Amino acid sequence: MTSPNEQRRAAVVGTGLIGGSIGLALRARGWHVSGIDADPARAALAHQLGALDAVGDDPGAEIIFVATPVSAVAAAARRALRLPSRGLPSRGLPSRGLLGGGRVVTDVGGVKGRIVAEVDDPFFVGGHPMAGSEQEGVEGADATLFDGATWVLTPTAATDPSAYARLRGVVSSLGADVVALEPQRHDALVAVVSHVPHLAAATLMGLAADGAEEHAAMLRLAAGGFRDMTRVAAGHPGIWPDICAENSSAIVAALDRLMGGLAEVRDTVAGGDRAGLLGRLERARSARRSLPVRLVRPEELSEVRLAVPDRPAVIAEVTTLLGEMAVNVEDLEIAHSAEGDRGVMVLVVDARAADQVRIALAAKGYRPSVQPLVAR
Amino acid sequence: MTSPNEQRRAAVVGTGLIGGSIGLALRARGWHVSGIDADPARAALAHQLGALDAVGDDPGAEIIFVATPVSAVAAAARRALRLPSRGLPSRGLPSRGLLGGGRVVTDVGGVKGRIVAEVDDPFFVGGHPMAGSEQEGVEGADATLFDGATWVLTPTAATDPSAYARLRGVVSSLGADVVALEPQRHDALVAVVSHVPHLAAATLMGLAADGAEEHAAMLRLAAGGFRDMTRVAAGHPGIWPDICAENSSAIVAALDRLMGGLAEVRDTVAGGDRAGLLGRLERARSARRSLPVRLVRPEELSEVRLAVPDRPAVIAEVTTLLGEMAVNVEDLEIAHSAEGDRGVMVLVVDARAADQVRIALAAKGYRPSVQPLVAR
Repeated sequence: MTSPNEQRRAAVVGTGLIGGSIGLALRARGWHVSGIDADPARAALAHQLGALDAVGDDPGAEIIFVATPVSAVAAAARRALRLPSRGLPSRGLPSRGLLGGGRVVTDVGGVKGRIVAEVDDPFFVGGHPMAGSEQEGVEGADATLFDGATWVLTPTAATDPSAYARLRGVVSSLGADVVALEPQRHDALVAVVSHVPHLAAATLMGLAADGAEEHAAMLRLAAGGFRDMTRVAAGHPGIWPDICAENSSAIVAALDRLMGGLAEVRDTVAGGDRAGLLGRLERARSARRSLPVRLVRPEELSEVRLAVPDRPAVIAEVTTLLGEMAVNVEDLEIAHSAEGDRGVMVLVVDARAADQVRIALAAKGYRPSVQPLVAR
Repeated sequence: MTSPNEQRRAAVVGTGLIGGSIGLALRARGWHVSGIDADPARAALAHQLGALDAVGDDPGAEIIFVATPVSAVAAAARRALRLPSRGLPSRGLPSRGLLGGGRVVTDVGGVKGRIVAEVDDPFFVGGHPMAGSEQEGVEGADATLFDGATWVLTPTAATDPSAYARLRGVVSSLGADVVALEPQRHDALVAVVSHVPHLAAATLMGLAADGAEEHAAMLRLAAGGFRDMTRVAAGHPGIWPDICAENSSAIVAALDRLMGGLAEVRDTVAGGDRAGLLGRLERARSARRSLPVRLVRPEELSEVRLAVPDRPAVIAEVTTLLGEMAVNVEDLEIAHSAEGDRGVMVLVVDARAADQVRIALAAKGYRPSVQPLVAR
């Protein structure tokens, strides 16, 4: 049996659905997880349900996940960064990277711009696991919630490379696909693929429900497609006022574009423009069918190595560049040289994208080398 | 072994995804199924894949499913009604009902108003199985496609009661929940729960795809909710120009209501109206969570019997009344008296709705009796 001192230690602030799921997932992988919540009863319940080893702060935690509502994240993250730390165990930790070790703090909020700007610390990296559930609270927590999910991380020029690589490794170990994006870019993109679809689903559901007051048969006709489309509307609405307040300009812009698109569809239908309608639906079909799926086969992966100078901005530059290119980064490691002033970044990416990655990195002044991950 | 003469016989006109699935489902239940298609190669393929016993018309078919594109249904249904019929076998058939037996023709088109008005025959009943698939063609056909699906039937005042009861029994035997609605009502309701959601899904998908041209990361962020919402957009677009042409006024009206709802949401978000947003999302959630699910336990069912005069309009009046009330009719049978001028209609409904059904039928001048389906 591993003694508690040999365990890697993490903490969770906010023990709801996501915080509880992180606790369960980490504990399933051998971590010691402690946690707190603004509501002590909720933390006690998380402990009772096995999502936490202990209730309270842990000075030995090398990573702290802030999983509070969006409006409380910045304050909780700043508190987590200031918590006293007991020397973090060296055993079991990956490379300390270019700038050495230290506690990493991250969050799981659905909007990133303001939070990342407010916290502004090399050891804070904004995060957003794009996984959810119709459940709410720690009772709905699930150790497998992040398996196959996209988990956005938003490193900035100030982010400590080693802290980022370590966080990235932990998040990947939970089964998630990490995508690095600039905070503002994240917010603009999730407005389109998450926030506005959620609001549209709720609006469609409301439309059918209003009709159902008059025609009870309405909802009996709600078949699979409608059920699929409105499923997200069954989720806990409590998080949305915060999200809409924090991301209102991107959401309003995306809603305007959606209404513009619907107005075009309306004119196409009203005008009997069959070819126009078909073309529109065919484009949508083609896009839906090419939604990316996860890569898993090692023989489809390449390793990209590049020497990097010891300056924090590199990690954000390289990872968000690949994030923008939609290149799936399967793994990322920072190996530092003995002298400590330069290091090597190792990226594992989709082999089909390796050449494109090499060219893009070369254009930024790096000199990457590419090789297959496994012999082919 | 049952000899071919003892088999119930059906035919399918149009052997695509739905026609093929009907063929497979009927054959799995012992029926002999023949079929034709405008494209002989497609009918041959359906035969080869086991969806048909034979290619061609069958004068012995007691029921013909027209599963052509919407624009071709009326002509195909009129042809099916005119086909010579060899005396239908009496063995294995349920009661011939109030007006005697005869071939029943139905269709599976997604819009009903014009088709039902154009065909206008006591032995034609419009139908719409609310089941589909991202597949297309008979290669995607599935014997279980209708299991648990809602299947709308649109009897009118002219519909032969026995023909309706027989069709209803066959459709139910495929695992579908039958809901009877007036044709125009069907069209207005599906505009809201099917046609407009489909167009909205395609529009959302288009929005994300347009954004992805600039930001490839866009689609990597498309998580479960977005994938659920846009899944229908992956379906075959070929059927939509017909559907939108046939149901354009209801679709345009529902699109206008959707855009109106989205404009309200936009103002709520732009104005920072947290309470308004939360209230809207909570109403949608509550409606989504109360979407009806299927009843199956016999002890939750009641039998409603009512004497009915020998006039065809009764079947449409009673069944569409229950359809409007969203009462789940689990079974329906027409038993005729020896004299043949009056009959008894037996409806099996959700026990919790039985009293409401009794009162509504009494208000229409019927004298229904209600009893549990099984002893409790």
